[in-house]
Amino acid sequence: MELVTEDNITDLAAARWGTAHDPRTAQLLEALVRHLHAFAREVRLTEAEWMAAIQWLNATGQISDDRREEFILASDVLGLSMLVVQMNNRLDPDATPATVLGPFHIDGSPEREYGGDMSDGLPGTPLYVHGTVRDLDGKAVGGALLDVWQADTDGMYEAQVVTDEARLRAKYHSRSDGGYCVRTVAPLGYAIPMDGPVGELIHRTDISHFRPAHVHFLVTVDGHEPLVTHLFREGTEYLDSDVVFGVKEPLVVAFQEREPGPTPDGGTSDVPFLVAEYDFVLQPTGR
Amino acid sequence: MELVTEDNITDLAAARWGTAHDPRTAQLLEALVRHLHAFAREVRLTEAEWMAAIQWLNATGQISDDRREEFILASDVLGLSMLVVQMNNRLDPDATPATVLGPFHIDGSPEREYGGDMSDGLPGTPLYVHGTVRDLDGKAVGGALLDVWQADTDGMYEAQVVTDEARLRAKYHSRSDGGYCVRTVAPLGYAIPMDGPVGELIHRTDISHFRPAHVHFLVTVDGHEPLVTHLFREGTEYLDSDVVFGVKEPLVVAFQEREPGPTPDGGTSDVPFLVAEYDFVLQPTGR
Ligand SMILES: [Fe+2]
Ligand SMILES: [Fe+2]
Repeated sequence: MELVTEDNITDLAAARWGTAHDPRTAQLLEALVRHLHAFAREVRLTEAEWMAAIQWLNATGQISDDRREEFILASDVLGLSMLVVQMNNRLDPDATPATVLGPFHIDGSPEREYGGDMSDGLPGTPLYVHGTVRDLDGKAVGGALLDVWQADTDGMYEAQVVTDEARLRAKYHSRSDGGYCVRTVAPLGYAIPMDGPVGELIHRTDISHFRPAHVHFLVTVDGHEPLVTHLFREGTEYLDSDVVFGVKEPLVVAFQEREPGPTPDGGTSDVPFLVAEYDFVLQPTGR
Repeated sequence: MELVTEDNITDLAAARWGTAHDPRTAQLLEALVRHLHAFAREVRLTEAEWMAAIQWLNATGQISDDRREEFILASDVLGLSMLVVQMNNRLDPDATPATVLGPFHIDGSPEREYGGDMSDGLPGTPLYVHGTVRDLDGKAVGGALLDVWQADTDGMYEAQVVTDEARLRAKYHSRSDGGYCVRTVAPLGYAIPMDGPVGELIHRTDISHFRPAHVHFLVTVDGHEPLVTHLFREGTEYLDSDVVFGVKEPLVVAFQEREPGPTPDGGTSDVPFLVAEYDFVLQPTGR
């Protein structure tokens, strides 16, 4: 019988998990064993540290529910989410770059018309985000679904407050000319949730736990790669220290101040408002 | 502002977590980032696989409670627990080797006298485990605490059944001559819990999900390294395929069959019983 030693255990464990019936699963599990063991060996993980890690993982799972995704947050702050986004979205340099989904996306947002207000009277400076959905050749893409979500001016997403209704999230469609128009309130920078196991780790470091002001977009339409991205407000705080590594230069957009008067959706505003103009450029599927 | 790319994100994230105030924490978190990213890069983790991993971690945390430790089980079956045990217990070759704690240890077991029965009338073949607690020089170690636990003959630990009372677990002390004697019932091999996320992974492989018959011991006494170990039944099934990599040759012990008559604790049995004789050899602290 082949008994376990410190020298052979990694090979033994990798060989076992390599028996997974699906070749990709086998590859993933074998690699997971090797990298996990390499980490433990490199740092000479103590039994107390191992137990602390087990308890951290437990706490992270247990604080999570259908409104809080602490493991996504952990992946975000460790840079893993952004690495995975980068590896899987090697888009054309002319396409709108992707960034992290984040832990706050909620499925099934209500539909809004062109220019429809997703802020529903919540406090904040009115903001219109508008532009055209295009392909790499500059051609308008109609019928694209824009799933939009953001934090309120206290930095809170719907998932973080008690509410029965969809809050600061909505679905828009681009018109046949590719045009879209989102009416909302200007987001501010916000702190990630610091009351859980991820916050407990960050508190032990000098890491800034803030994200720069942004609006999330998930843009999907047949024939094009789905695009998960944000638009960040130009000049806002934390652009160079985003705790989830999400900022990319092409996603930083001016929020222009406008006096009361005509708005991008063809209406009028009797208070000052902001306008961000941005064209989403989609990459064809499988290119 | 330094923006994130696929090339620089690992260095950026490692540098951030390297700001942890405690140097060991900084070392651990920086190494964690590097190994986690190396894994994702090597396998070119897809976004769907990343999401599946997030969901697996969530489910593993959420099935865990004060009686079920699914992350410990995961660590066990990935060989990580045994690797950590090996690295932290480089004991003298003459000392009793350590093995995994496992997910079923419960604190605060009741105290039993020499030969006291921890099976409390549960079905099974009576088993006496007895011997001497010694040091590396062969000297008897009195007053050692032996915290003992095991599965029932259905392979179930206390944590896996509904009960208000301590079940198949007890604390014994070695006498001044080093002698100890545990009265229990013979354990059988058992399957690890397969109804959770760990079982779901194992089902996708050819991995045997059984452990060979064993009794758990945690032996502690001032001046000696704490010893977490098992005694395995010689000749039992699964010794060469233990799903948690826990078997070591010196821990495999004969369970000798005895006719009704005198028992190792000085009593008598009117039914056949088993006797396992084993001397625990402890290593001095800090050697
Ligand atoms: Fe966000
Ligand atoms: Fe066990």
